[in-house]
Amino acid sequence: MKKSRFLQTPIEPFAVEAGLSADQILARMERISFQGRNLATAHRIWQKMLADDVTIFLGMAGALSAGGLRLIVAHLILNRYVDCLVSTGANLYHDLHETRGQHHYVGSAHADDAALAKDRIDRVYDTYASEEEFISNDNWIAAFAATLEVRPFTSREFLYALGGHLWETTRQDGILTAAYRANVPIFCPAIADSSIGMGLSQARQSKPGTGHIDIIGDIVESANLIIRRPRTASVVLGGGTPKNFINQASVQAEFYSDEVSGHRYALQIVTDVPHFGGASGSSLEEAQSWGKLATDSARVSVQADATIALPILVSALATTAAPMLAARRMPVFTLARTMTVDGQDVRSDRFEEMNEPSV
Amino acid sequence: MKKSRFLQTPIEPFAVEAGLSADQILARMERISFQGRNLATAHRIWQKMLADDVTIFLGMAGALSAGGLRLIVAHLILNRYVDCLVSTGANLYHDLHETRGQHHYVGSAHADDAALAKDRIDRVYDTYASEEEFISNDNWIAAFAATLEVRPFTSREFLYALGGHLWETTRQDGILTAAYRANVPIFCPAIADSSIGMGLSQARQSKPGTGHIDIIGDIVESANLIIRRPRTASVVLGGGTPKNFINQASVQAEFYSDEVSGHRYALQIVTDVPHFGGASGSSLEEAQSWGKLATDSARVSVQADATIALPILVSALATTAAPMLAARRMPVFTLARTMTVDGQDVRSDRFEEMNEPSV
Amino acid sequence: MKKSRFLQTPIEPFAVEAGLSADQILARMERISFQGRNLATAHRIWQKMLADDVTIFLGMAGALSAGGLRLIVAHLILNRYVDCLVSTGANLYHDLHETRGQHHYVGSAHADDAALAKDRIDRVYDTYASEEEFISNDNWIAAFAATLEVRPFTSREFLYALGGHLWETTRQDGILTAAYRANVPIFCPAIADSSIGMGLSQARQSKPGTGHIDIIGDIVESANLIIRRPRTASVVLGGGTPKNFINQASVQAEFYSDEVSGHRYALQIVTDVPHFGGASGSSLEEAQSWGKLATDSARVSVQADATIALPILVSALATTAAPMLAARRMPVFTLARTMTVDGQDVRSDRFEEMNEPSV
Amino acid sequence: MKKSRFLQTPIEPFAVEAGLSADQILARMERISFQGRNLATAHRIWQKMLADDVTIFLGMAGALSAGGLRLIVAHLILNRYVDCLVSTGANLYHDLHETRGQHHYVGSAHADDAALAKDRIDRVYDTYASEEEFISNDNWIAAFAATLEVRPFTSREFLYALGGHLWETTRQDGILTAAYRANVPIFCPAIADSSIGMGLSQARQSKPGTGHIDIIGDIVESANLIIRRPRTASVVLGGGTPKNFINQASVQAEFYSDEVSGHRYALQIVTDVPHFGGASGSSLEEAQSWGKLATDSARVSVQADATIALPILVSALATTAAPMLAARRMPVFTLARTMTVDGQDVRSDRFEEMNEPSV
Repeated sequence: MKKSRFLQTPIEPFAVEAGLSADQILARMERISFQGRNLATAHRIWQKMLADDVTIFLGMAGALSAGGLRLIVAHLILNRYVDCLVSTGANLYHDLHETRGQHHYVGSAHADDAALAKDRIDRVYDTYASEEEFISNDNWIAAFAATLEVRPFTSREFLYALGGHLWETTRQDGILTAAYRANVPIFCPAIADSSIGMGLSQARQSKPGTGHIDIIGDIVESANLIIRRPRTASVVLGGGTPKNFINQASVQAEFYSDEVSGHRYALQIVTDVPHFGGASGSSLEEAQSWGKLATDSARVSVQADATIALPILVSALATTAAPMLAARRMPVFTLARTMTVDGQDVRSDRFEEMNEPSV
Repeated sequence: MKKSRFLQTPIEPFAVEAGLSADQILARMERISFQGRNLATAHRIWQKMLADDVTIFLGMAGALSAGGLRLIVAHLILNRYVDCLVSTGANLYHDLHETRGQHHYVGSAHADDAALAKDRIDRVYDTYASEEEFISNDNWIAAFAATLEVRPFTSREFLYALGGHLWETTRQDGILTAAYRANVPIFCPAIADSSIGMGLSQARQSKPGTGHIDIIGDIVESANLIIRRPRTASVVLGGGTPKNFINQASVQAEFYSDEVSGHRYALQIVTDVPHFGGASGSSLEEAQSWGKLATDSARVSVQADATIALPILVSALATTAAPMLAARRMPVFTLARTMTVDGQDVRSDRFEEMNEPSV
Repeated sequence: MKKSRFLQTPIEPFAVEAGLSADQILARMERISFQGRNLATAHRIWQKMLADDVTIFLGMAGALSAGGLRLIVAHLILNRYVDCLVSTGANLYHDLHETRGQHHYVGSAHADDAALAKDRIDRVYDTYASEEEFISNDNWIAAFAATLEVRPFTSREFLYALGGHLWETTRQDGILTAAYRANVPIFCPAIADSSIGMGLSQARQSKPGTGHIDIIGDIVESANLIIRRPRTASVVLGGGTPKNFINQASVQAEFYSDEVSGHRYALQIVTDVPHFGGASGSSLEEAQSWGKLATDSARVSVQADATIALPILVSALATTAAPMLAARRMPVFTLARTMTVDGQDVRSDRFEEMNEPSV
Repeated sequence: MKKSRFLQTPIEPFAVEAGLSADQILARMERISFQGRNLATAHRIWQKMLADDVTIFLGMAGALSAGGLRLIVAHLILNRYVDCLVSTGANLYHDLHETRGQHHYVGSAHADDAALAKDRIDRVYDTYASEEEFISNDNWIAAFAATLEVRPFTSREFLYALGGHLWETTRQDGILTAAYRANVPIFCPAIADSSIGMGLSQARQSKPGTGHIDIIGDIVESANLIIRRPRTASVVLGGGTPKNFINQASVQAEFYSDEVSGHRYALQIVTDVPHFGGASGSSLEEAQSWGKLATDSARVSVQADATIALPILVSALATTAAPMLAARRMPVFTLARTMTVDGQDVRSDRFEEMNEPSV
């Protein structure tokens, strides 16, 4: 009997062996099923991104910094597995918290929250932090913001300055300091919804007129970045505003340049599901209908907690991606008031119009 | 044998009957279990909020407007079940889309996305929209934004102006027009992550220097609102930035006024779960540790898709809440550049400091 | 411009009105999105099942009886919205518990489980029950089982006898007593994994050789039932063994009769998701590949907690389904050792072979 | 200022390094947060189980065999990381399918199911199998069952015989053959809900009276096993009937022996959640209220797909557990009609009563 065209590649059961490294484990997961296979596929797709000539965006939502993944993200930035970070404010704030020498703490998901409230301990599921230390961060951010010129900053410009100040002050590894050192831009479109925003707002108390973030400028800047370098890839952890902002930049860029046609690669590690209609859980198939993704893009969605998936995935890449990283043709940024990529200006005040005006 | 103190209130099985109204159905769900009971509890807690003297915040994330719930939210605003809306940009944008006479369409979750892309149809799970119509909205928003003064607007001020323009143009029901007519403020902390933001960014193309949103001012304004009226309640649909922004306003307000001590009531309808650490799914118990919620608050979390839970819940309230709405002591707003509540200014440039300075 | 073929049916936002009944609410949810639309579709599909000439299977997993839905299921059976129940043992056991005059109790999901253990209270999420009462049920079942002949019973035959004994003893409404009175067969393929199984096992202590359940006979019987009446429909609550058993019966029947070709209608209310590969969350699309569902079947999957979805759905059907129920051509059962349907034997010892033997 | 008692153990961010092995990765995840920390804790708890003198039950639900994890489970059995398997029928059936030299195939979650149905390909999410090959398995099982004595077999006895026959026929690794070779008992309480049950039912066609499984005997046997060895541990993959059956055995055993007091260790890897009340997602805290778990048990619940979590966890254990495995004091079984453990009979016809009769 002829074999069906659907039955080509047998499942290959995972074979246990002592001493396997992360990349060997993922290699043995390539032909299993479900999210295990997807994680192995993510490993391959990220390698392909690195081998290709694309600008790689990393989106980051969920309590990843508080939850112990911030040095993974710092590693991705410093070693240029990624070229541009889009983050929630909380992840940058919790990163700053630890970079300043403070800690989050191992806690319990079954805590007595009234007792925690009494001790002024803030809980994030199974993780604790000191409210007093948080307040000291807010003040630190407010004090820094008050040293800046009284004019609007894009979140990108502000975060570069903040990262620089943090690096000068601490010389410690972290996301903000890594991005500063590696000249990797960070966008934070929802900065108003975070303690970094709270710090900025408090700056107005001491210095009227300060703490202005031009988040509409961030939209222009991110789209211009893609207009300058139309081949892109998207790595998304957890969904949220970063996921949409990265996609929106591509869609917006496409209005002004025909060379832009959606991400060439997309990889997301999410816990949300598509069937309630929210953007965080939306499928990469759906993203094609919007032009966020090229219809021939390589893509994979991994339904998993990033605190499990990311340590394994990046541990594997640390071995397998070394040659691609060494040979990578990555974008080169300068991050002053007007950023540049590969020597070209990336303005925040108007879109670069690349197309002939249609009559 | 003595009955355990734990065995006090028997489960009362739901009894089927033809012709039951939503409130009767929820009344019969009060003593069942799991999320059914929680939905019935939500009904009771919302009634309590309305009977008490609290400012009720409504947070809204997920594709609720595209998904057919925008007139429910408009109803909640017009009839003052809620006093202040915090929304994602997408929900306001999709609302504007329909208020302008366009539609979202019933589609399939199993669509051929390449075919949709070819027809320039954007898919949100099982719902479609026309990209051309979306572009016409972007242009409409850009054109309107270009008519405004060249200065920063809080999202709250901008959205009030936008709602007014939309009302003048269309005279149609919707979220933005309801809020305009009812003088209910809308905050959109992540406006940069939406097509409203995209429209604003395009305004810069025709009129340099325009499209400035002062989202840090939104932080100050929302906290000052709570400082002015320290008793609050929170109704959250779907989590996201609105959930955190509402809580953050309370925490921020508490820095400057001892009278603020967390929401008195909290009700959330979410599909995310707590155990991955993200804010959208975080529990209301955890919120107490942060002081976002008073430790003696009435609270309930319903794990359900809002497209199921909200039609039932609000249909029930339409009957049961009528007396509370009639008797309600609700905040009265004016929404010009500096908003007022109950006749008092709510500034966006600095926090009102209500406490004696601690020495 | 020509409208895309994809943009035919506009979303129609839900309009709030006081006093709406369940069926009116579902009618207004037909053209919204996501799970709300799916619930409205479920309402329509169930009506279609009732109007057609099909045997309707109801599968039931999850703690629905303890959770307050047992009288809904009893109502569905007594009024023949369904023709055959496939249940987990726990749901039948918790039903028996209440039919015997005992209760489950409203509890808290944040209980102190050590304190509960000390008081011998068993917790099911937010619901409590007395261990002593459970033990009294086990003994009651064991005593009853010891009165039966010492021979294997299919779970179907045993549960009919149990229901009869329960009805004679209590004259109370419930699932088991409704099925007994309405001559609706109940299958419990995983009876060994429940307290009913525990009760049966204890019968062996007092009367050696008793408590034999012929669950392989259940397979034969359920397939023969479909061979006798090849047009079927499936309503599934929560997945689990009942979901698969109903599908398996159809697949098994198809081996022996060419007239069987998968369920004509399928409706499931589940909380599990497809992407981890488990059967509970598996999609109805996938079910077609197996022949469990006809490829032209009417089908809908609702992602929701049954404690929310079922009260509304059945409240609506109580109004809208009345004419279909009155006119229904339903299977007629007798439920002795060998059951019959429409006067024909449904054997448990061998499959009816309807096809010409293929040479 | 004194540090709060809640702030003792700082989160230690995961540090990336090339070449890390699975156990090193899990060691670096011990002090991160959320499910990553839980997976690391699972690693530690499993080691503790192995170091202690406990009977370790493994429960297995979900499509793990089809999904490529069957050789991991075989490895766990052969090397006695576990002592007794409780499985769904499907996992044993899909294991038998591959052990017999057939395959499951890498497929797509976005398949055209009508096309698959035409080719008679069965889909499990992203994995395919040939219906013809499945039918050949059914026949193979039916033929084997017809060779057995015409009397009831517990699922445990039957599966031992089946494993033996499979081993004699194939000499291939797999779950059934590993259990046969290692004398590890397998229980399948819901065998009627699987293709193994279907095969058994077909045996009746060729040989009347055959294919009797005494699943009530399984209840007795599993409880007697715990009565004989009261210290137990539970490892659960995916929930379902195996999870409950393992717990039920402990609860049932406690009726007859005061030495039984719930599992000393519990580890579950599940994707279901607690808040809908179903047993698969139920928390290990709740299990204490029932006495399924000792209130001082070491326990951890990992919310993850087993296809991600298990390869990593077992790869790590392959290194770290070697000394515990070498020194392990494990139960020794014989698996004839009446099984024995450590030389003592484990009957299936009545419970061993260890306690003084209470007057």
